Amino acid sequence: MPPEVCLREAVHPSDRDAVRRIVTDSGFFTAAEVDVAVELVDERLAKGEASGYEFLFADQDGAVAGYACYGEIACTVGSYDLYWVAVDPALQRQGLGRRLVDEVERRIAERQGRKAYIETSSRALYEPTRQFYLRCGYREVARFPDFYAPEDDKVVYEKSLSR
Amino acid sequence: MPPEVCLREAVHPSDRDAVRRIVTDSGFFTAAEVDVAVELVDERLAKGEASGYEFLFADQDGAVAGYACYGEIACTVGSYDLYWVAVDPALQRQGLGRRLVDEVERRIAERQGRKAYIETSSRALYEPTRQFYLRCGYREVARFPDFYAPEDDKVVYEKSLSR
Repeated sequence: MPPEVCLREAVHPSDRDAVRRIVTDSGFFTAAEVDVAVELVDERLAKGEASGYEFLFADQDGAVAGYACYGEIACTVGSYDLYWVAVDPALQRQGLGRRLVDEVERRIAERQGRKAYIETSSRALYEPTRQFYLRCGYREVARFPDFYAPEDDKVVYEKSLSR
Repeated sequence: MPPEVCLREAVHPSDRDAVRRIVTDSGFFTAAEVDVAVELVDERLAKGEASGYEFLFADQDGAVAGYACYGEIACTVGSYDLYWVAVDPALQRQGLGRRLVDEVERRIAERQGRKAYIETSSRALYEPTRQFYLRCGYREVARFPDFYAPEDDKVVYEKSLSR
């Protein structure tokens, strides 16, 4: 029987280190991106809901196994960015990422959210990431050539959420 | 002879009120968007360059006639967002908006910036805005259906900057 996963929305100071560990270990993110991931935790800890950043943590055996960070996009009515979804590499391939995405979408829809957006890079490294988003029901809605750097496009995925 | 325009990059506390006045009077922005415009001034005043927000003010006859706010996009190499360009309605049609955009692009290129992006709404109200960006040499690179609200798409313009 797989170990039980506990989802929680409350953010704890210890999540700073957990987020840094998971995002670093995933191997998908640059040092600057890791810093941004931790900054969003700090913003949430400092400002609470006013930060605009919502979190969903998946705890397993007393440690953070994965998390998602999302928030309503300023000056929109019901459009949300899914900023981060990351799972401890040792605990991947158990459906945890998919569960986090599903649960985030449910929470967005409960708040009358209409749209969820996810951005990623066009680089080959992120091919599994892009396939994951497609499996989750997202569609590619935009592509920005050379956005992150020369030869590194931004690809934006979108999903319309039903209420 | 038209009154002399003085460009400055330094942000003063009095610019909070100037930005609120110009952005409100332009008639193009919602109350929430006006608040965001002022928040960016506050961020810059509080954190300086670390805010990530750069400003360019156009002063005329001792008052702010228009301004632009821009910044490098986190986790990119040389991609910049042009967050705001606004000109006092009483002082429009004198080429001030175009001058602000040109001067911002020059500053971005000097910092090895490669790309400038501007986002706006698809609503009819913003047709002159979109025409202005096209005249400035921007091209539509993406469109997000129903992004701001139902029937209100986000349109993204892009310009590649030469050094």
